[in-house]
Amino acid sequence: MISKEQIAADYSQIQDEICSGLELVDGLGKFQEEVWEREGGGGGRTRVIQQGNVLEKGGVNFSAVEGKLPEPVKKVFKVDEEDFFATGVSIVIHPNHPWVPIIHMNIRYFEMSDQVRWFGGGIDLTPHYVIPEDAQFFHQYLKSVCDQFHADFYTKFKNWADDYFFINHRAETRGIGGIFYDRLTPESAGISWDEIFNFSKAVGRSFVPIYSELVNRNRIKEFSEQHKNWQYQRRSRYAEFNLVYDAGTKFGLETNGRIESILMSLPPQANWVYDYQAKEGSLEQQTLDLLKKGINWV
Amino acid sequence: MISKEQIAADYSQIQDEICSGLELVDGLGKFQEEVWEREGGGGGRTRVIQQGNVLEKGGVNFSAVEGKLPEPVKKVFKVDEEDFFATGVSIVIHPNHPWVPIIHMNIRYFEMSDQVRWFGGGIDLTPHYVIPEDAQFFHQYLKSVCDQFHADFYTKFKNWADDYFFINHRAETRGIGGIFYDRLTPESAGISWDEIFNFSKAVGRSFVPIYSELVNRNRIKEFSEQHKNWQYQRRSRYAEFNLVYDAGTKFGLETNGRIESILMSLPPQANWVYDYQAKEGSLEQQTLDLLKKGINWV
Repeated sequence: MISKEQIAADYSQIQDEICSGLELVDGLGKFQEEVWEREGGGGGRTRVIQQGNVLEKGGVNFSAVEGKLPEPVKKVFKVDEEDFFATGVSIVIHPNHPWVPIIHMNIRYFEMSDQVRWFGGGIDLTPHYVIPEDAQFFHQYLKSVCDQFHADFYTKFKNWADDYFFINHRAETRGIGGIFYDRLTPESAGISWDEIFNFSKAVGRSFVPIYSELVNRNRIKEFSEQHKNWQYQRRSRYAEFNLVYDAGTKFGLETNGRIESILMSLPPQANWVYDYQAKEGSLEQQTLDLLKKGINWV
Repeated sequence: MISKEQIAADYSQIQDEICSGLELVDGLGKFQEEVWEREGGGGGRTRVIQQGNVLEKGGVNFSAVEGKLPEPVKKVFKVDEEDFFATGVSIVIHPNHPWVPIIHMNIRYFEMSDQVRWFGGGIDLTPHYVIPEDAQFFHQYLKSVCDQFHADFYTKFKNWADDYFFINHRAETRGIGGIFYDRLTPESAGISWDEIFNFSKAVGRSFVPIYSELVNRNRIKEFSEQHKNWQYQRRSRYAEFNLVYDAGTKFGLETNGRIESILMSLPPQANWVYDYQAKEGSLEQQTLDLLKKGINWV
């Protein structure tokens, strides 16, 4: 089994690769780095890009923290162990362009002193307007990554994402899903620790090619004020999901994590319009019709 | 003891009075009404005002619902009873003007078939910029309402509001508080049911004179883009509180309440700026310095 130091080192390198890749595709924005230490052990590097050509607000966080597990977390994880180590890379990008999708990616590793350990992560897309060809490209790409490691991964993790990224009170998905996995071990995954680790790195390294393609396909499109207003409304649903349901956000808020790093995922601007009703047959209604679980995009 | 029908009727009348009063002070906006019925029993009248002279987005809701208590609510309330009745008036106003404060008011009555019953409610203020004279006026007015019913009410309910309207992850209060009370009974309040009911109506009827005064004091002030940006940022904290902590919102989301009525409290536009730091000595910093528990405004 690979050491936790090795996992943290590789994840940290993936953060570097992703930041370089995103700066390249944006062409203007540059990441600002904030290195922080965690009271209790470890720390991280928060990197934020703002006011780029396309990337309006985005963060690529790396952290490797350790210490004693806070009580509320022990309850959620249903473990008694005290000492933990966790490392991961976490990304959210809010583009300024309404035809370019919001994207989220996370890869993470967690272990406790009694050798209980697991990998988690995923990548999912939240288009303001769902474009079927882009959704197909996105899911097909993820399937090809998954298929390299296990024939069952894509279907299993795609369904998991549908269930996870669900705004229960709106009865709609946050976006078009992607893949989501948690507590992956050789027992649950059917592949070795080394392969699970390689899978998580492959997920991390799929981020730049996927998002570059989606940015470049759509950044050239014209848009109107109506499209912008819709974008701000969709962002408010994103904020609702993250503040009400997202496990990582809740975890961070309850354990006194670094607030600005945790809430970096929130949109630069979000609008709530009372009782908005999309017009029948409109692009907005077409998008709402596709925010459902169980759509097969591949 | 007054009947639940009487309480609902008086609360409904208070909704009417408040809507008339708010239209008068705004001078342009008119409330749009939506009457709804609840599956399981009862219903309500949601009234929303948008794009007024000062009132950018506001709602004044009345509801009187009854039926079987949902399981999650039974757990929260720690009761076994099945049949319940609840009525109340709930208000949130987001003004367009950064010097006019956001305001929230709620009066509510709850009873179960075994005669367990209580009143709850309160009124609190969230200025984008805290103006000490306005805060004093606001708290002094609430104290004068409370003092008519019990000498201890103001201090007790003011401290309760400080504790309740607290954004734990930011370590700041949502605004400058006000009064908050819950599960008021003759036993806990030290006054009769009739007097508790009269107190709740006095709270409801304090809304229009208080808010009219605060609107008229500030609507004439000039403001800049910087003030607007700050307003949008403060609104994002308001959204965070409501989505992460507010008991009424959680209650509504978990019990399949009418989503648009519940989330009517969310601001028309909210901005999240990464790691915003107010300048030392700035008006923004002065406001942040006053978002603390335990400030004595009277």
